[in-house]
Amino acid sequence: MPDFIDSLTLAEPSGPSLLAAERARSNISINELANHLLGHDGFLQRQSKVLPIILSEPLFKKSTQANISRPERFKLALARGKLLRRLADKHGWTHAEHEMAEYLVDDVSPYMLHMGMFVTTIREQGSDEQRAQWLPKIEKWEIIGAYAQTELGHGSNVRGLECQARWDATTREFVLHSPTLTASKWWNGTLGRTANFAVVVAQLMLPDPKAKGQNEKETKYVSYGPHPFLVQVRDLKTHQPLEGIVIGDIGPKYGYPSMDNAYMLFDSFRIPHSALLSRYSSVDPETGLYSKPAQPTVVYGTLTYMRSKIIQHARLVLARAVTIAVRYTAIRRQFADRDSPPDDKSTELPVLDYPTVQIRILPLLATTFALHYTGLAMQNIYNNTRKEIESGDFGSLAYMHSMSSGLKSLCTTLAADGIETCRRALGGHGYGGGSGLVQLNTDYLSKVTVEGDNWMITQQTAAYLIKKVAIALNPAAKGSGSDEIDLQFRTYLPRVQAEDNTVCEYDILRNDWDLVRAFQHRATALAYDAYQDRVVRKKGWTSLMVNLHKLSRAQSQCVLVTQFYLALTSNTDLSKPATDVLWDLYRLFALFTLEADRYEFFACNAASKPDLDAIPERINDLMSRIRPHAVRLVDAWQIPDYLLDSALGRSDGRVYEDLFNRAHRLNPLNKITVNPNYWDDEIVKGEGGGGEDMKSILAKL
Amino acid sequence: MPDFIDSLTLAEPSGPSLLAAERARSNISINELANHLLGHDGFLQRQSKVLPIILSEPLFKKSTQANISRPERFKLALARGKLLRRLADKHGWTHAEHEMAEYLVDDVSPYMLHMGMFVTTIREQGSDEQRAQWLPKIEKWEIIGAYAQTELGHGSNVRGLECQARWDATTREFVLHSPTLTASKWWNGTLGRTANFAVVVAQLMLPDPKAKGQNEKETKYVSYGPHPFLVQVRDLKTHQPLEGIVIGDIGPKYGYPSMDNAYMLFDSFRIPHSALLSRYSSVDPETGLYSKPAQPTVVYGTLTYMRSKIIQHARLVLARAVTIAVRYTAIRRQFADRDSPPDDKSTELPVLDYPTVQIRILPLLATTFALHYTGLAMQNIYNNTRKEIESGDFGSLAYMHSMSSGLKSLCTTLAADGIETCRRALGGHGYGGGSGLVQLNTDYLSKVTVEGDNWMITQQTAAYLIKKVAIALNPAAKGSGSDEIDLQFRTYLPRVQAEDNTVCEYDILRNDWDLVRAFQHRATALAYDAYQDRVVRKKGWTSLMVNLHKLSRAQSQCVLVTQFYLALTSNTDLSKPATDVLWDLYRLFALFTLEADRYEFFACNAASKPDLDAIPERINDLMSRIRPHAVRLVDAWQIPDYLLDSALGRSDGRVYEDLFNRAHRLNPLNKITVNPNYWDDEIVKGEGGGGEDMKSILAKL
Repeated sequence: MPDFIDSLTLAEPSGPSLLAAERARSNISINELANHLLGHDGFLQRQSKVLPIILSEPLFKKSTQANISRPERFKLALARGKLLRRLADKHGWTHAEHEMAEYLVDDVSPYMLHMGMFVTTIREQGSDEQRAQWLPKIEKWEIIGAYAQTELGHGSNVRGLECQARWDATTREFVLHSPTLTASKWWNGTLGRTANFAVVVAQLMLPDPKAKGQNEKETKYVSYGPHPFLVQVRDLKTHQPLEGIVIGDIGPKYGYPSMDNAYMLFDSFRIPHSALLSRYSSVDPETGLYSKPAQPTVVYGTLTYMRSKIIQHARLVLARAVTIAVRYTAIRRQFADRDSPPDDKSTELPVLDYPTVQIRILPLLATTFALHYTGLAMQNIYNNTRKEIESGDFGSLAYMHSMSSGLKSLCTTLAADGIETCRRALGGHGYGGGSGLVQLNTDYLSKVTVEGDNWMITQQTAAYLIKKVAIALNPAAKGSGSDEIDLQFRTYLPRVQAEDNTVCEYDILRNDWDLVRAFQHRATALAYDAYQDRVVRKKGWTSLMVNLHKLSRAQSQCVLVTQFYLALTSNTDLSKPATDVLWDLYRLFALFTLEADRYEFFACNAASKPDLDAIPERINDLMSRIRPHAVRLVDAWQIPDYLLDSALGRSDGRVYEDLFNRAHRLNPLNKITVNPNYWDDEIVKGEGGGGEDMKSILAKL
Repeated sequence: MPDFIDSLTLAEPSGPSLLAAERARSNISINELANHLLGHDGFLQRQSKVLPIILSEPLFKKSTQANISRPERFKLALARGKLLRRLADKHGWTHAEHEMAEYLVDDVSPYMLHMGMFVTTIREQGSDEQRAQWLPKIEKWEIIGAYAQTELGHGSNVRGLECQARWDATTREFVLHSPTLTASKWWNGTLGRTANFAVVVAQLMLPDPKAKGQNEKETKYVSYGPHPFLVQVRDLKTHQPLEGIVIGDIGPKYGYPSMDNAYMLFDSFRIPHSALLSRYSSVDPETGLYSKPAQPTVVYGTLTYMRSKIIQHARLVLARAVTIAVRYTAIRRQFADRDSPPDDKSTELPVLDYPTVQIRILPLLATTFALHYTGLAMQNIYNNTRKEIESGDFGSLAYMHSMSSGLKSLCTTLAADGIETCRRALGGHGYGGGSGLVQLNTDYLSKVTVEGDNWMITQQTAAYLIKKVAIALNPAAKGSGSDEIDLQFRTYLPRVQAEDNTVCEYDILRNDWDLVRAFQHRATALAYDAYQDRVVRKKGWTSLMVNLHKLSRAQSQCVLVTQFYLALTSNTDLSKPATDVLWDLYRLFALFTLEADRYEFFACNAASKPDLDAIPERINDLMSRIRPHAVRLVDAWQIPDYLLDSALGRSDGRVYEDLFNRAHRLNPLNKITVNPNYWDDEIVKGEGGGGEDMKSILAKL
C-alpha cells in the first residue's frame, strides 16, 4: 500500500521544528565553538575536504552492513580499505587526511595495524639501515604488516611471553618457536587474513655466557627478555603462510567484525640476523653477544604514544553518543508534567526536560569538554617529552608514562560507560539499530582492555605517586622534583598531614578555583594514605591494589578538572555566551564527579558537609542553565550525519521518518516470507529464498 | 601442519588441574547447595531431563551462529523453534519443560510472544467465550500470535498511543487506523515475520454520548483509553499481510538477532465486534455504550507478572556471567606478586587472587544469591496477591505493583551492569567470542528498558512510599496500613524524625541483623525527605525525580538485603560449611552495596564514620574468606556447559584448547584467502569465494 504509507504525516510538532526551536533558544555561536574545539590543527578543514569524497562512493554506504555475515563484513572492510588508499593516492591526501577518511567510514580497518603500530615500531625501533630498507615498501603498501605481541596465555605481562627467538650461532639465524599452545600469538590485528609481514615480539634467547657448550645441543640459553623481530609470514604471491607458520583469524568478537585479529604459531621457523629491530638493542652476529639499550624505558615510547592517542580519541567517541542523546531526547516526548493543570494533561514533555534524563546526559556533555582539554594537554606533554628524549633527556618519561596510564584508564572508562549511559537514556529506540550506538558501543568496549587493562595500569600511576610523596616528605634526601605532581604534593601534603585538618578551606559551590583545590587536596590525601600503607606500614602491594586503583582514579580526575579550569582561564577565542556556558559545564563536570565520591572528599576535609549536602540542588540548577544550550553545544562537535549513522541523532531531526525508512525500505529480512507452522519443514516461502527448509538451514551451518 | 599443532602441549599447570585444586580447597557440598537453590520447584530435574535431548540435535549446535547474517540467524531460530515444539510433542514436555528447552538453546525465539504475552493476554483479558474459542487454537499453534502495544512514537506512556479502534455502529465493527507515521506499531516481537494474529492495543473510540450526530460523519468520537483487540493480521495460507495492513521487521538491533520485532500500520482496517477482549471492559453492540472494569488496576496484572518473571530471571543470567568469570580468573595467570622473593618472580598468580579482580567478581557472586532470594519472595507475593485478586480482594495490588517496579529496575540494572563488569574482568579474552558473554550481554541489555524503563518506573515505587509515609505519620486520619512498608515506617520514622538522631545505633560490621536495620533506616530517611519535599514543601514532582529514583533504589536494596537475611535465618536444608559461606556472601553483598552510597548512610546516621571507614578492610577480609569457595559456589548454580557456550567458563577448565579450537577449526573466515594489494580489485583468492572483487561485493550490498 504505497499510497497509504506515502500519505502518512507525522504528529506535530515535528522533529525538524523542534530542533529549530532548540537552536533558537541559545545564543552561543556554533561555528565559534567548533573552531575553538577543532579548528586549531586543521581537523575541521580535513573533515570538510574528505567527507564529500567519501559520500560520493557507494562502497562506503552504511545502510546494510549490520545485516551481513562476519566473512562478508570483513571482505567489505578490505574493499573499503583498498578504495581509501586509492582515493588517498588520487587526491594526494596527507596521512592525517587518510586517517580522517578512516574515521568517517568508521570501519576498524583490516589495514589499521599496518598504518599504525607496524610502521611506528619500524620507525621507532628499526636501525637506520632497517628504516631505509623497509619504510618505503611499507609506505607504498608493497608489504602489509601487523604487530604480534600478545599471546593466547599472556597479555599484560609482556615479560611472561612464551614465544622464543633462539640465536643459532652456526647459521647466524634466529629460530622462532612456539613451545606450547598458549605461546600462540593471539589478538594481533591485521594479521589473521591480511598481512604478509609482522613485527613479532619474542623472548630473545642467547647462549648463556657462563655456560657455553661445545655444540648447539649442549648450549644453555637464557632469555634477554622480549624483543621485536620483523618477519615475513605469508608468501607475497600465493598469500599462504610460509612453511613453519600457522596463522588464522580468531573468530567473531564483541565488536570489530571488520578486523582480522590473528592467532599465529611458529614451528622452529628461521629468520635472518637482520630481523631483530636493532635501534636500541642488538646481537653481535660474530660473538652472539648482546648490546642493551642505554635507557631501557625508551621502548615504552610506542605504548605511551598509543595511550595518548586513545586519550585524545575518547572525546570524539563520547561526543558522538552525546550528540545522538541530546538531539533525540530534545525531540522525543513522553508524559505530561504530573503537576500540569487538568486541562493540559495531553502536552507531553520532551524527555530532556526530565531531571532523570538530564542527570545522565548533561554531565556526559560536560565530560566531552573535560576529555578534550585533557587530551590536548596530554598531546603537548607527549610532544615535549618526545623532543626531550630525542635529545637524550629522559627526565620527563616517568611522569608522562604515569600520567598517560592513569588517564588512559579513566578516560576510556568514562567514554565506554558514557556511551551505554546515553544508550539507556534513549528508551526502546536506544536498543535499535537506528540509534547509531550499536557498533560504536561494541567496538569501543575493546578500549578498556587494549594498550593496558584499565585496572592493571593504574598501578603504574599509583607507584609513581607514592614515590613522589616520599620525595616531597623528604626533599633533602632525594631531591625536590619539579613536575606537576611535586608541586601539588608540596602544596597539599602539609595540610593533609596537619593535626588540625578538621575544617574544609574550599568553597566548592561558589569558587571555581576551589574546585580544583578540592580535587588536588583529595588526591594528595589518598596518595599520602597509600604512602603510609606501603612505605611506612610496609603492607603488601597486592593487598593494597584496590586503594591504588582509587588513588590513580582520583589523581586522573584531578587532572581532568585542572585542565578544564586552565583551558577556560586562558581562553581567548570565545565570546561571552559560550564562555559562560563552558564555565557551567566545568562546574557540572567537577561537582558531578565529586558527588559520586563525596564520602572520600568529606573524610579528608576536601569538602564540607553543608556543601556536600547542597551539591544535588546545585547540580539541578546547573543542568537547567545548560539545558537551553544543549543542542547547540553538541552541534559544535560537528559530527557529520554520515559518521553518526543514527536515525535518532540526525542533525535535521527527521527521527521517525528515518527509523521507518530503515525498517520498511532497507531491511533485507523483509524480503522473505516465512511459514510459521511447526508441522511443516519449510521455513521460507516463495521468492527470495524459496524452498529453504530445516534441513537446508542445518546444512549451511 | 597438523602434526605440529597436534603435538603442542600446554604450559603447566593446566586448566583442569587448576580447577580440580580449586574444588579441593572448599568443603561445601555442590549438590546440597544446588538443591537448596534450584531443587525446590523441579528446575534441576527439568534441566537434566531436557538437556540430553537438546544436545542430541545438530540444529541446536551453537558453534557457528555468531558468523552468519541476520536473515540466516532468524531462519535458524525459526527452524529451532519448530523443532522444539516437535520435541515437546514427542516427549510430552510440560510447558515448564518446553521453557527449559528454550532457556538452554538460548535463542530469543520467534515464537516467544506467542508463548508468553499473547496467550497470557487472551487468558487474562478474554471473556469466557473468547477463551473457549481461541485458547485451543493457540495451544495447538494453529494460529501464531503477537502482542502489539508500543508504537514508533509511544512507549512508556500507554495512554498516549495513537492507533485507534473506532466503533462503526452501522456495521457493528471496529475500524483500526493509524492516523500518523508515529502511530505505527513498533518493537512488537514475533510479529515482524512470524505471527498471523496479534493482540493490538488501540484507543477505543466511541461516539460521544453528549454529542451524537445523525450519521457517522457528524458523530463525534471520544477515546475510552487503550484497549486490547484480537486481530488476524496475515493470511493463513499465503502468510501475506491482509489488505489494509502493512507489517515488517524493524531491522537489526543491539541484540535479539533471532527475533522479528515488528512495525505495523492499519489503513482503516475493519475487525468484528468480537475482537475486543472483553473480560473486564466491553461495548454493547446494540447501543455502542461502554462498560468499564470494576477495578481498573486489574489490567496491570500482566505487567506485574512480566516484571516478577524478569526479577526471577536476573539471578540465572548473572550466575552465568559470574560462573565464567570465576572459573576463568581462577585459571588465568598474570604477573608474580610484586613482593615475592627475587628467586620466585616467575610464578604468576591466578588473577582471581588480585583484590582488583575480586572486588569486581565476588560481590557479584554474592549478588546472584541476593537476587535469588528476592526473586523467590517476589514470586510468593505475586502468587498470593493473584489469589486474593481472583477472590475479589485488591488490597495488596498496589503494594505488589510498587515493589515489582522498584525491584525490576534495580535487579535488571544489577544483572546488566554485572555481566559487563565480569566481561571487563576477563581481560582481552573477555572481548572475544569465546567468552560466552557477547550474546548474553547484547540480549540482556534490552531488559533495562522493556516492561517499564528502569528510570521511569521507579516513580511508581516512590509515589507509593510517599503515600505510606503520610499514613504512618497520621494513622488516625487514613488508617494504619499493614504491609511491610507500613511496618518499616512505623519502626524507623520516629528515629529518623527525632531531634537527637545524631548517634548511629547499628553495629553494621559485627551484627548481621543491624545491616538490615541500617538499610531500613536509610530507606526510611530518604522516604521521609521525599515526603517533606513533595507533601510538606509542595515541590514539583518533576523537579524531584532524581531523588525519587534514589529512594526507590534504596528501598529495593533494602528488600534484597532483608530477603537475603531472612532466607539464611530460616534456612533448614544447608549444613554448616555452606551456611557459613552464605553468611559471608550476605555480609559482602550488604557492605559492598552500602559502601557505594556510604555518604547517604552517614548523613542519616544509619552508619557511623568509624564503621564506614573500616568497611573496605572488612570487604577485603570477607573476600579472602569467600575466595577458596568461589569455584564450588558457581558450580552450585549448575549452568550446563552447553548453555554457557564459553571457552573461558568450561566446567573442565580446558580454556585454551577450546579457544584455539574455535579459532582454528570452527571459524569460516579462515576458509578464504585474501589479496591485500590495494592496486588489485580482487578481494578473495582461490577456493571458497574465488573471483570476488570490489564490484561484486558492492553488488551484494
